[in-house]
Amino acid sequence: MAKKIGVHTIELESCPVVLGYASAVGKKESEGPLHSYFDIIYPDPYVGEKSFEKAESIMQKNAANKAIEKAALNTSDINFVFAGDLLNQCAGSHYGLRDLNIAFIGLYGACSTMAEALAFAALFVEGGFASRSMAVTSSHFCASERQFRFPLEYGGQRAPTSQWTVTGAGAVVVGENKNNETNSPHIKRVTFGKIIDMGITDINNMGAAMAPSAYETIKTFLKDTGTNPDDYDMILTGDLGQVGSQLLIDLLQKDDIDISKVHNDCGLMIYDINKQDVHAGGSGCGCSASVLCSVIMKRFSQGQLNKILFAATGALMSPTTVQQGESIPGITHLIEIRK
Amino acid sequence: MAKKIGVHTIELESCPVVLGYASAVGKKESEGPLHSYFDIIYPDPYVGEKSFEKAESIMQKNAANKAIEKAALNTSDINFVFAGDLLNQCAGSHYGLRDLNIAFIGLYGACSTMAEALAFAALFVEGGFASRSMAVTSSHFCASERQFRFPLEYGGQRAPTSQWTVTGAGAVVVGENKNNETNSPHIKRVTFGKIIDMGITDINNMGAAMAPSAYETIKTFLKDTGTNPDDYDMILTGDLGQVGSQLLIDLLQKDDIDISKVHNDCGLMIYDINKQDVHAGGSGCGCSASVLCSVIMKRFSQGQLNKILFAATGALMSPTTVQQGESIPGITHLIEIRK
Repeated sequence: MAKKIGVHTIELESCPVVLGYASAVGKKESEGPLHSYFDIIYPDPYVGEKSFEKAESIMQKNAANKAIEKAALNTSDINFVFAGDLLNQCAGSHYGLRDLNIAFIGLYGACSTMAEALAFAALFVEGGFASRSMAVTSSHFCASERQFRFPLEYGGQRAPTSQWTVTGAGAVVVGENKNNETNSPHIKRVTFGKIIDMGITDINNMGAAMAPSAYETIKTFLKDTGTNPDDYDMILTGDLGQVGSQLLIDLLQKDDIDISKVHNDCGLMIYDINKQDVHAGGSGCGCSASVLCSVIMKRFSQGQLNKILFAATGALMSPTTVQQGESIPGITHLIEIRK
Repeated sequence: MAKKIGVHTIELESCPVVLGYASAVGKKESEGPLHSYFDIIYPDPYVGEKSFEKAESIMQKNAANKAIEKAALNTSDINFVFAGDLLNQCAGSHYGLRDLNIAFIGLYGACSTMAEALAFAALFVEGGFASRSMAVTSSHFCASERQFRFPLEYGGQRAPTSQWTVTGAGAVVVGENKNNETNSPHIKRVTFGKIIDMGITDINNMGAAMAPSAYETIKTFLKDTGTNPDDYDMILTGDLGQVGSQLLIDLLQKDDIDISKVHNDCGLMIYDINKQDVHAGGSGCGCSASVLCSVIMKRFSQGQLNKILFAATGALMSPTTVQQGESIPGITHLIEIRK
């Protein structure tokens, strides 16, 4: 049975195992350093649909089906799907997964959603609520720009601290670790974060808004588990980008926690930030999802990674709250993945 | 340990118990038939704030704190809060609960969110992930109207099939059933629903869009558990209103399942629909939440209810998807509450 350790951390005794994973991305992502790791690439931002929102749904659906296929399963083998995205009312997930015919559980954690969804998928297996479950999230640059900022046609200038929303989706199927497999990635510990709001109001600096929550959740996890950054091959944050990553390293340094040697960030991995004009890096639910479900899982299977912390970060504002002068709350959920 | 029964139903062996609950509502709701059951009433739709969105956050925050107080607990006693609402990016919950200092898990299930959140709160206790957890949701008529339909100042006519979004919030604290208490309401079984889309495109007829999903989830639950409608004191749907409730009864009747004697709907209970000009009844995340966390829980403690099914229904569209010609998917999550 699961064990509560420390304040906010749950240890999963049954070690639910990753049975399959898949990623689907757009053109820009396919031109970045991770190009060879993605399962599906869409050169057309519309994915053959009439709107960017519909395109995002198709990406999410196809990533989900690909993960199920790679797990050598059918949809009827999956008990629950946990999903969410950035579109208002999480429309990307609802329309993308409505034909999947799997009991659906909708989440909203902004760009932290992949960690939230994967934590649930694993905990439902751990608790005996499911034999197999899956986590799916997505984002789309063009749909996000017009919803959160400006329509693309407006041609607005982007601030140096701003991040580029990833056009992509990722899906993971998790199941019971029947044979106590140690050769496949499995979920060992989970820390759900609190909402942390340090008063950042700059909508073009999500990294700064999210870094304090990443600091809080990572510190809590390390304290709860009595471990150090060096105990992990990688501490991977969701999408802090360049600004947020540096802030996180600095904040932890003040508590004598040095993650600089093992830290990486999905928002920095997915693009070549010097060449691809993405300013501070990538972001969006699809950022951490497509990085986790491509290069990270692949490196586990190649033996290059054996123990990582995956801490996806989310900025919880809405355009309405920002217009009303509110600051931007952040949240970070963390998963320890081992092989 | 929890048991999977049938296709989608989970039986909770430890019977997590309701430790406290509270509701907060607006003026119109306080003028309805349930007026004496609510904990907090706000005559001012702004709740002293500068926007309806901020007002909704305050309602949610105060309902949460009241539930914790009524459970004779402190916030530090609660391990996780599960919350969501209808505002874009679930802003009501993020801003309402950001100061609560409890690990936060964001959900989106439209008007089904209260059942989803309460299911999670109970399952986290069942799985040993939490000692105590809580579920909170809200909605606000004025904030919803301008986000989903028209600003109030426009004075748009409402269709006879349309429903009135409840201004209200509800919160429930759930905990370990240490003494195997049978005298307090506890969560016994949970069924998570699938997304069901029967092609309804009328944004003014949410009841019709949601009824097929309620039919599907209730039928699944009864089949999985081998029980009949007569085994329950009440089968309470979230907010189907007049149109959706009749559709649900008719749909089940075709399968020889007669719920008419025990069925009620939160959207029909909260207002006097003949006198309060709400057309087909109430709706919104705050509808099922404030009805559950007032009259329903009270009737459990008064011995008038001993075994109910609480099936909250949600319509998963967004204004954008509707404008793009999409139909309205529905979802229903179900909880069996016993005493």
